[in-house]
Amino acid sequence: MERIERHASFGGRQEVWKHVSRTLGCEMRVGVYLPAAALRGQPCPVLYWLSGLTCTEQNFITKAGAQAHAARHGLIVVAPDTSPRGATVADDPAYDLGQGAGFYLNATRAPWVPHYRMEDYVVDELPALVEQHFPALPRRGILGHSMGGHGALTLALRHPGRYASVSAFSPIVAPAQVPWGQKAFTAYLGDDRAAWAEHDTVTLIAQPRDERLPLLVDQGDADEFLASQLRPELLRAACESAGHPLTLRLQPGYDHSYYFVASFLADHFAHHAGALAAGVDEPGA
Amino acid sequence: MERIERHASFGGRQEVWKHVSRTLGCEMRVGVYLPAAALRGQPCPVLYWLSGLTCTEQNFITKAGAQAHAARHGLIVVAPDTSPRGATVADDPAYDLGQGAGFYLNATRAPWVPHYRMEDYVVDELPALVEQHFPALPRRGILGHSMGGHGALTLALRHPGRYASVSAFSPIVAPAQVPWGQKAFTAYLGDDRAAWAEHDTVTLIAQPRDERLPLLVDQGDADEFLASQLRPELLRAACESAGHPLTLRLQPGYDHSYYFVASFLADHFAHHAGALAAGVDEPGA
Repeated sequence: MERIERHASFGGRQEVWKHVSRTLGCEMRVGVYLPAAALRGQPCPVLYWLSGLTCTEQNFITKAGAQAHAARHGLIVVAPDTSPRGATVADDPAYDLGQGAGFYLNATRAPWVPHYRMEDYVVDELPALVEQHFPALPRRGILGHSMGGHGALTLALRHPGRYASVSAFSPIVAPAQVPWGQKAFTAYLGDDRAAWAEHDTVTLIAQPRDERLPLLVDQGDADEFLASQLRPELLRAACESAGHPLTLRLQPGYDHSYYFVASFLADHFAHHAGALAAGVDEPGA
Repeated sequence: MERIERHASFGGRQEVWKHVSRTLGCEMRVGVYLPAAALRGQPCPVLYWLSGLTCTEQNFITKAGAQAHAARHGLIVVAPDTSPRGATVADDPAYDLGQGAGFYLNATRAPWVPHYRMEDYVVDELPALVEQHFPALPRRGILGHSMGGHGALTLALRHPGRYASVSAFSPIVAPAQVPWGQKAFTAYLGDDRAAWAEHDTVTLIAQPRDERLPLLVDQGDADEFLASQLRPELLRAACESAGHPLTLRLQPGYDHSYYFVASFLADHFAHHAGALAAGVDEPGA
């Protein structure tokens, strides 16, 4: 890993690293916030943030105001890019397919094989790198926005025991039922609806499962994608039906932007910090 | 004025407006944050933020995390662009002259006359517009970053009674003595050193004056422009010599970025809120 940015921030440090990913077969960039405790070498829990369509590792670290919360709770925050990148990586001219739109799954169809394996990258390779290079505890939370909210929810549901906490802003909760997800799933997974179901939050929630992590989900009710792409009512119904603990907050007047994310991010950090600190001897101060 | 962006944010609203400026002879954009109290129609004090070289009205409103503080203190925050703009406005290929580099003064030399009149715009036209279009009290604070820190300090010093509070991040405190300022002053004001002195904070501080607003200045000690362009030691010496109240904080490890601004912005809002609320019947909660 090679550090390419380094900025003092709220007593800690916001960094950006690049590395060649074995999983994705390309160079990747990732934002890493290290709170003061981590800079002193004290192991800290790690919160993984997954961004939405069109984003890189930069959007969250520059726009969300996350560093203040990470500093307060003593959390490392890792913000990867949203897809494999580079001239040798398949792409599509549309904003919602290809580079910038990896959908946090492993593609099985050409031309997206072999690079598009964001699930393996986020769940396995990236945490291994983080826990090797930084004073990171193997205690992980995951959250994200929009496509990244879909990523956070599906990855936590698909990998029980891997994350201690999960939350989302404006997540695509039923990709198999909405245009963004149907387009991406058709491209990356083909027409096999059983494969789609494995990456669809409302379907995963309905399955029998031993672990049911409480979900915190914020959604703006003035979000331009609410009715067409996000449909939080499907998540509410799925959780009620399955007995899955859900706090779903419809925030009046809020849209799909980082202004919305920033407004409620403190609550999400508190949600994760509570779960992540429970297994730590000395919680971040 | 025409609203071109509108985002719910921390219980208030971040907006962007455009308007044709009489002073500048071009269309201008300006960020306006309205706290919840202002949305209810309650008059609020106004904080003016001036950005640095290359910035537009977007940098501060997307990167500084200011909305949380504005909401907490019940302040309207106005963030204008850094120069006149447009195809009919003189420009220069360098990042530190022309569009994006107005230096918050009224130019007297071609080709910068007649558009480059950022002092009149910020001090007169913009507050008049704000106080007409929003529930804004005629109680103003001013702050900024780098070239905008220079703007905040010089405009407050040049217009006693106009601002109740002033502060700066990484300001250019002695433009007449450093390359950025010498280049801009030569272009906009010609070779007349007496004209330069009127826009040089350390010179203005040395003049006899009835009003001496306390200055809060934060400066990162890892700022890449510290020794060449910023030279806070000249401000400290000028304030000591003149008896001007100054809180100058050298922040260890911090650079020139918005990560630095965001880290200490809460203190600046508290500084301004204290002064601005003093004349208000019901301080923002």
